[in-house]
Amino acid sequence: MHIINFFLLFVFLVNCGICESRYALETNYIEVPVDHFSTVETTTFKLRYLISTKYHVKGGPAFVYTGNEGPIDIFVQNTGFMFDIAPRFNALVIFIEHRYYGESLPFGNKSLTSPEALRYLTTSQALADYAFVIEDLRKTYFGTMLTIDTSPFIAFGGSYGGMLAAWLRMKYPYSVLGAIASSAPIWYFPDLTPCNTFYEKVTSVFERYGKEDCTQMVKLGWDIIYKMSKTNVGLKFLSNSWRLCKNLATVRDVERLLDWLSNIYVKLALSNYHYPTDFLTPLPAYPVKVFCDKLTSSYFNDSQSLIEHFGNALEIYTNYTGTKQCNNINSTIEDPNELAWKYQSCTELVRPTCSTDKDMFVTKAWSYDDFAKCCLTRYNIKSQKRNWVVTTFGGFNIKHFSNIVFSNGLLDPLSTGGVLRNISDTIVAVNITDGPHHVELRNYDPSDNNYVINARKFHIAAIKRWLDV
Amino acid sequence: MHIINFFLLFVFLVNCGICESRYALETNYIEVPVDHFSTVETTTFKLRYLISTKYHVKGGPAFVYTGNEGPIDIFVQNTGFMFDIAPRFNALVIFIEHRYYGESLPFGNKSLTSPEALRYLTTSQALADYAFVIEDLRKTYFGTMLTIDTSPFIAFGGSYGGMLAAWLRMKYPYSVLGAIASSAPIWYFPDLTPCNTFYEKVTSVFERYGKEDCTQMVKLGWDIIYKMSKTNVGLKFLSNSWRLCKNLATVRDVERLLDWLSNIYVKLALSNYHYPTDFLTPLPAYPVKVFCDKLTSSYFNDSQSLIEHFGNALEIYTNYTGTKQCNNINSTIEDPNELAWKYQSCTELVRPTCSTDKDMFVTKAWSYDDFAKCCLTRYNIKSQKRNWVVTTFGGFNIKHFSNIVFSNGLLDPLSTGGVLRNISDTIVAVNITDGPHHVELRNYDPSDNNYVINARKFHIAAIKRWLDV
Repeated sequence: MHIINFFLLFVFLVNCGICESRYALETNYIEVPVDHFSTVETTTFKLRYLISTKYHVKGGPAFVYTGNEGPIDIFVQNTGFMFDIAPRFNALVIFIEHRYYGESLPFGNKSLTSPEALRYLTTSQALADYAFVIEDLRKTYFGTMLTIDTSPFIAFGGSYGGMLAAWLRMKYPYSVLGAIASSAPIWYFPDLTPCNTFYEKVTSVFERYGKEDCTQMVKLGWDIIYKMSKTNVGLKFLSNSWRLCKNLATVRDVERLLDWLSNIYVKLALSNYHYPTDFLTPLPAYPVKVFCDKLTSSYFNDSQSLIEHFGNALEIYTNYTGTKQCNNINSTIEDPNELAWKYQSCTELVRPTCSTDKDMFVTKAWSYDDFAKCCLTRYNIKSQKRNWVVTTFGGFNIKHFSNIVFSNGLLDPLSTGGVLRNISDTIVAVNITDGPHHVELRNYDPSDNNYVINARKFHIAAIKRWLDV
Repeated sequence: MHIINFFLLFVFLVNCGICESRYALETNYIEVPVDHFSTVETTTFKLRYLISTKYHVKGGPAFVYTGNEGPIDIFVQNTGFMFDIAPRFNALVIFIEHRYYGESLPFGNKSLTSPEALRYLTTSQALADYAFVIEDLRKTYFGTMLTIDTSPFIAFGGSYGGMLAAWLRMKYPYSVLGAIASSAPIWYFPDLTPCNTFYEKVTSVFERYGKEDCTQMVKLGWDIIYKMSKTNVGLKFLSNSWRLCKNLATVRDVERLLDWLSNIYVKLALSNYHYPTDFLTPLPAYPVKVFCDKLTSSYFNDSQSLIEHFGNALEIYTNYTGTKQCNNINSTIEDPNELAWKYQSCTELVRPTCSTDKDMFVTKAWSYDDFAKCCLTRYNIKSQKRNWVVTTFGGFNIKHFSNIVFSNGLLDPLSTGGVLRNISDTIVAVNITDGPHHVELRNYDPSDNNYVINARKFHIAAIKRWLDV
């Protein structure tokens, strides 16, 4: 069993200097408590946030992005919508980094090295950080305090960041007037969403955009890799043919290769935007279609030719710009942000994910016990909070909260754990037909279809309601 | 500066065996996490709760009292309203004990002995306890889970327990459908309520129920005590005359005596019920009136006679049953529950309280710095979370929450920090003219006036709305 890492948005971190200058973003740091809930701990650390006053006019609101599992820069680049609408609202724009990611490390480079250091990597602490930073900004930019009035802060977030935006509104409704929670799978947790839905949705994206034999080819691929990996000659051929940075040698290496390949399929589906992007990595428009077209363009009877053909097709994801020397299938386990996310996934954010014969992935069951064992043996992380999300945020029972928009692309694999229907007058859903992962949070694009445009209108209308403008 | 302890409801703990048998209460214990917010800690401890199924009929709701700063038994005795209305609702009745009080000690008799042991004594942890216990009861008594449906739990609480009931609904609205927060001074915190209001309200109770010279006599009392305490002869006379268990000797002893006396005035005002009670201690009906009548019944020119007269009047509070051997002015600092409450008052629940020349108390300023210094020097507790309540619960900005009734007796000194006006359609206030501390949560009494009766009707109507019955 592997811990799926499809939330990971930062695997290929791009340089965001362009955004920063375009939006006049300043980098700031604020001292926040390491432990918000303790009466004993007084240690603080520097949390990073980016702020743009470029569009801010007195009387305008503040748009706050609640950072997810990566350096905050990446989310600036993929959430252009906030800047696109900032001028019409005269809004201050802020992006707050999630603790333990990017530069916001409570214990510097020791932050991820021991359970003792990692103990403050919790979603509750992250939410408290956001409320804390917002309270500070409230004083600085609005000259007011919670005791007096609620200033017009609006939370935005995509994916895990969207969950955080929604959860911030749920737990600290006086901190933000409302939350735009895009592609936020708040129900992707035990007892809420069946484990098979995620890979089935990925498969359906390949069925929708690829020719009919694309998923068949993907399935065939697993068999060939299995067979080929049984001999040293096969392993060597696979390593060379797919230009792996390090030759496959052990059973664990092969497992990693399979995880790596699964993740590529997942990420292709997540990034299946209608124009070229560099969200997770540089990709063409509709990368699933491009991949499937290439994969199904020829057929070979012998395994070696097929593997070579697969390798070529995969380069659409792994090497679209043609500049990559080799493919590092271990890159994710070497990235500190990835380690932090593994920690969160093993501890609080337990997402049951299985594959069955209804999808194109290798069949794998899921049980919490196996999952916990995997966390312990593979990452040395104790998993012991299976029900944490439900206990902390109420599972399906969110009707008691207010002012949240849940938006989901209906071809986003994560939409299966999302809120796809209105819950109340103030907790509402907007679904984007054929949409991938938080597509509407991206910058306006001339090729945006009506579904995306309407979702943005939906967001703007909600924000206006919340601001009463 | 002293840390006011007027929240303390348990100073004279009465035997509640009668209630337990009358209401068929069973004592249960449930293992709860010592640290709900940690991904590392797995230690649990036994939290006590009392449960009565006597009135429960399938389909009926559950009434949950969120225990405050004392052994849970005492709150059963003073919250008879829940049992009075349980039959008409077919309700399960539950009283959950607050961690670190009564029998619910995370580290047994070591729970209060070190900062390390005390670190889990926080309101956030207590709220998480209540949500945790409710989730467990939901499964046991309603056969359902949060993932499926919100079962009909209603929170009740008085004083700090009322704050907890309101805060539980705020932070875990899926846990309880609504909260009856009686005499819950959720705004009695820095930047929310002026520090002088509390003692002024106490004074106004004495003005309202005592003859006009009662507050003058009280003021005179301070002067005489000051003068008398300057000589050893005076100290000895005071000690004998007021039947103190231990003779006054030091300046600190005199400070304690003054605190003790202040607290008696406060508690007389808090307990100024219209019938005899044993809420904090056995008392006659309208004890403020009885005390004032006695105090102002004679006048003496010499200090000694006056002090003796004072001592006699005070016995209405200290020795109404006539069975007490002596008055222990140190009793509060010897009580472990009191120590726990001091800890909470010094850490998270910072309540600014000062007296001025507008009240009948000795003039005392209040500043957070002095307060923090007092906590450190007197109790060895670091106070460093001045703004915690506002940051955590939003200060005046509670309109974003829902389904809370705030009830306040308008002659309850704590009402000055309470919510006395409707905040929204679902956060509503009911004020009880001339009412003392959470009077309407007590059992029906033939002498209840219309204000009390109407407040109870208000509660019942709210509960019906929340339950949709």
